[in-house]
Amino acid sequence: MSKRPLILITNDDGITAPGIRTLISVMNQIGDVVVVAPNSPQSAMGHAITINSTLHCSKIELDNGPQIEFSCSGTPADCVKLAVNELLDRKPDICISGINHGSNSSINVIYSGTMSAALEAGIQGIPAIGYSLLDYHWGANFEPLKPAIKTITENAIKNGIPQNIVLNVNMPKVNESKDLKGIKICRQAKAHWIEKFDKRTNPMGKDYYWLTGEFINEDKGHDTDEWALKKGFISIVPVQYDLTAHDVIHELNTWGFE
Amino acid sequence: MSKRPLILITNDDGITAPGIRTLISVMNQIGDVVVVAPNSPQSAMGHAITINSTLHCSKIELDNGPQIEFSCSGTPADCVKLAVNELLDRKPDICISGINHGSNSSINVIYSGTMSAALEAGIQGIPAIGYSLLDYHWGANFEPLKPAIKTITENAIKNGIPQNIVLNVNMPKVNESKDLKGIKICRQAKAHWIEKFDKRTNPMGKDYYWLTGEFINEDKGHDTDEWALKKGFISIVPVQYDLTAHDVIHELNTWGFE
Repeated sequence: MSKRPLILITNDDGITAPGIRTLISVMNQIGDVVVVAPNSPQSAMGHAITINSTLHCSKIELDNGPQIEFSCSGTPADCVKLAVNELLDRKPDICISGINHGSNSSINVIYSGTMSAALEAGIQGIPAIGYSLLDYHWGANFEPLKPAIKTITENAIKNGIPQNIVLNVNMPKVNESKDLKGIKICRQAKAHWIEKFDKRTNPMGKDYYWLTGEFINEDKGHDTDEWALKKGFISIVPVQYDLTAHDVIHELNTWGFE
Repeated sequence: MSKRPLILITNDDGITAPGIRTLISVMNQIGDVVVVAPNSPQSAMGHAITINSTLHCSKIELDNGPQIEFSCSGTPADCVKLAVNELLDRKPDICISGINHGSNSSINVIYSGTMSAALEAGIQGIPAIGYSLLDYHWGANFEPLKPAIKTITENAIKNGIPQNIVLNVNMPKVNESKDLKGIKICRQAKAHWIEKFDKRTNPMGKDYYWLTGEFINEDKGHDTDEWALKKGFISIVPVQYDLTAHDVIHELNTWGFE
């Protein structure tokens, strides 16, 4: 690695979101930054990719920072694919996604565009971290998180993220940096959403639904991301994209196929 | 479970796709079928959900089958959420997704709308299976797969799918049922796509891209889905939605945070 790492930044809230602007300001202190991010919000896109329509991408300038920026029409995963295979001259040393406006802890990792970008980078062999703040407001206070994000990212670059793993970092909402209790390595809490569909009727008499829901944490463990966040810690969950449940292969073999 | 299980069927190619119509005909032999599927193709949607726009859902009749059918405007994951929380009187005994027109083996599981529906059911506590055929054509030959799909589904109902697991079933393209070599329980092969972006210029002089790519299987193992499929077997990979890489938590703790 050269002295200044090449850092690819993306997100799912769109290139103008305060979260990604904060992330860019931190990463400019660490390396040479290229931003390739969606031109509009892509939240809850999961690991969607654009295969049946076209992608657009434009170089833009949004502030006076040294970073190079591209605004793209696709999903977060599209942005990473475009960056790595088309826009960048060399493989980035690390890919940082976020800062997401809202939690990607626990089962939310599955629905997360922020984490899908990080996973896509991981699949492409690039160390990757997704950062999220437990505050979905556009005007959320990202300032107190800057020192922790710098520390975690520098540690990841120095130590190297383990192979086939990306880091899912969630951060509690705080007023000042000193309110953060520390950083905990965690497992994903077992949780799910109970959906409530708000059923309405449109002016033409046709029914439609809005998805709402309640988050249910079934997990009583003290080693989960939910527990750590509730206690005021930053949680780091190592996330894998080999989804195989290796420990049940033996059980399924007792079903007697073949 | 009553004598006839309640079977929820969905997919990502849309409710009129030959793959789901085949699946419905098989499942009608096993239980009482309710279909809640997208009204248009949703391929490569990953685990997207619709949170910032409205969902529509209409009861429809597409053939003379005994099944009940709903056509919805959302993603595959939306369809499962709507079915379970709004449309069905009771929790289905099993959710079957597919038959996908195209492979969801190996890393494709991450991008798959078919598997995202199965995972969503799993998260909701419903046993679930995703079926995919390694032929992406609309006119693919699904007939030879029917006996195997019936066998696998009946086995899953009888034995019970392990907790927090869903099954990712991929099937090779064959002319006749007897060409299938058997069924293998597998792990997800380590593989990735090398993207190629086909860059074009539109009539207004603006550049745009089409995503294309080449699938690279880096995995030489004889216990992977890719290996089994190449040898003519049906592959079953048990898939988990706890993405935590539990075995690297210790290593990350040596980074010395806190």
